[in-house]
Amino acid sequence: MSNLNILGISGSLRKQSRNSGLLRKVAELVPENISFSIADLQQVPFYNADIPADGKPEAVLKIFDQMAKADAFIFACPEYNYSLAPALKNIIDWASRQPDNALLAGKPVAIMGAGGGMGTARSQYHLRQVCVFVDLYPLNKPEFFSSAFSESYNEDGDLVDEHKIEQIKEIINALARWSKTLAVK
Amino acid sequence: MSNLNILGISGSLRKQSRNSGLLRKVAELVPENISFSIADLQQVPFYNADIPADGKPEAVLKIFDQMAKADAFIFACPEYNYSLAPALKNIIDWASRQPDNALLAGKPVAIMGAGGGMGTARSQYHLRQVCVFVDLYPLNKPEFFSSAFSESYNEDGDLVDEHKIEQIKEIINALARWSKTLAVK
Amino acid sequence: MSNLNILGISGSLRKQSRNSGLLRKVAELVPENISFSIADLQQVPFYNADIPADGKPEAVLKIFDQMAKADAFIFACPEYNYSLAPALKNIIDWASRQPDNALLAGKPVAIMGAGGGMGTARSQYHLRQVCVFVDLYPLNKPEFFSSAFSESYNEDGDLVDEHKIEQIKEIINALARWSKTLAVK
Amino acid sequence: MSNLNILGISGSLRKQSRNSGLLRKVAELVPENISFSIADLQQVPFYNADIPADGKPEAVLKIFDQMAKADAFIFACPEYNYSLAPALKNIIDWASRQPDNALLAGKPVAIMGAGGGMGTARSQYHLRQVCVFVDLYPLNKPEFFSSAFSESYNEDGDLVDEHKIEQIKEIINALARWSKTLAVK
Repeated sequence: MSNLNILGISGSLRKQSRNSGLLRKVAELVPENISFSIADLQQVPFYNADIPADGKPEAVLKIFDQMAKADAFIFACPEYNYSLAPALKNIIDWASRQPDNALLAGKPVAIMGAGGGMGTARSQYHLRQVCVFVDLYPLNKPEFFSSAFSESYNEDGDLVDEHKIEQIKEIINALARWSKTLAVK
Repeated sequence: MSNLNILGISGSLRKQSRNSGLLRKVAELVPENISFSIADLQQVPFYNADIPADGKPEAVLKIFDQMAKADAFIFACPEYNYSLAPALKNIIDWASRQPDNALLAGKPVAIMGAGGGMGTARSQYHLRQVCVFVDLYPLNKPEFFSSAFSESYNEDGDLVDEHKIEQIKEIINALARWSKTLAVK
Repeated sequence: MSNLNILGISGSLRKQSRNSGLLRKVAELVPENISFSIADLQQVPFYNADIPADGKPEAVLKIFDQMAKADAFIFACPEYNYSLAPALKNIIDWASRQPDNALLAGKPVAIMGAGGGMGTARSQYHLRQVCVFVDLYPLNKPEFFSSAFSESYNEDGDLVDEHKIEQIKEIINALARWSKTLAVK
Repeated sequence: MSNLNILGISGSLRKQSRNSGLLRKVAELVPENISFSIADLQQVPFYNADIPADGKPEAVLKIFDQMAKADAFIFACPEYNYSLAPALKNIIDWASRQPDNALLAGKPVAIMGAGGGMGTARSQYHLRQVCVFVDLYPLNKPEFFSSAFSESYNEDGDLVDEHKIEQIKEIINALARWSKTLAVK
């Protein structure tokens, strides 16, 4: 029986995205007692306060449903121009407007990223600032940075580097422990 | 004859946006020798590296044309969840992939924002970090922060506070001087 | 009997510092089951890797002793020039070099600040980034920002605003709960 | 005859500091028409608003004199715990309190750094935020990041990597051009 439900969200919309590749690797590696699914951002439009509460797009509602069930998140965080990928920021913005911020508040999150000269570090620290307001609790460690110049990925964007795969396992374990800690109120 | 061409970009898609209201105020206030236009982000999709170079949407091409003609930018920068509005970040991301970063590189920019408890300050510093990579040169001063809790706007999102209107004038003047300085290579 | 030991550290060395005033107010407000002390940074020199391990100044050793006993921290975080006060950053730097980072790792912290146009917010987000590396866990909420332009303080730097005093009480309570949560490994 | 006066400031107090090594390399590489000196921070105490205006320490006054003569700065920026070295931040804080911010306002600066997993990048972006308030104008490019894990330095902290030495030359040239640009008001 699954006792932890994790939702993965990748900020890249590209098919062969390495960031999405990180989440595919998580899906392979999660142990049996963890249920892991991945959000599909392809049809999610920009948040706009003019969209009425009862007019939310299907793609958004589906992710809200996944978020409601999730005990924890893994964000695969690209870096575009030294900051966040708009698609990742946008779904967080959508979710944060739900009543009582119930989709996000108090939940644990692990952050990882592939790309840029510094493995998306600059973007990840912006994401951590976002977490303060939306009341998500990122793991401090391990951090996960994978440079775009690495040979850790194949041409489909799949992670093939053994050392990095071990890091992913450590993050899954750390997130499971962190979720257990935060569950105590 | 116009000797400075400024393009305004607002990160909010909402009709009664105060950030867009700031740009409407700029349009009223610019002196005759400055030409000012405003980008329309409503139909701009998320950047996605899978979109082929010859498949760029019309809305993007139109803004690229405006950017090519612009000597300087004014960014009206909302704050969503302590960071950037995805729509603003996204058009910068689109533009940054053009050859030689010619739409942005070396150009001056003024940043202003309305909203949040701190007048979008947290978001503006993230935007300044973006400027480092895309090689835009923001004015250091004056900064412009207008709190969401202020009564500086009417219900259409138009700026009505005289003190803030004076600040907008100062920013236009400072940006004109800064453009002149940066034009010297 | 005290069951929680909190150490307060103020980044300002000034006698009538409002940031130190915040910690004096905490000292008044902590309930009986919390033990609260304040670090004295006056004689702490700049960290310098050339200082031998057995040559640490008395003032540093005394604070290390307080830190070792502390279950949690409260940082009173000034803002100087949009970033951290060197004295606060410096004692964290000193502490972070102790074996296994045992003085800091995994401990909860609350952050508050007085000063600047935005209540030291810009500095506090830099401090939160420091916490990632030194493995401290800041409360997400409540945040505490008190502008230098407020009339919340008397001339000795003591907090006299009732609303702000209530916020301090909330922070103490939230930190006590957060400490309890994090104590579960 | 020298037509540009640059002051170098290193945030590390350690004798064999690689950051100070970067400045020693600059001293070797500057062309004849640039005068370059290095600030000595060893005796500079923490800024404290209680120190009277006429009680400034000798070491501070000496650096103020160097700053007054400087047309431009080079900051060698270490990274301690994902943010600024207190000694570097502290001398900027001291300088920023001089009348009209005349020691800093409007001056160009180049930033470089050695250390950390990412060549002090995290610290450098905090420094750039400081520059906004103190009205310094950092070069956008080239940035200079040199990892602590590199073999670019000898045991005295001197830079020996030819590629990195070329980067230093580029930075000196870029700073000279940037100084010329900013000199036009």
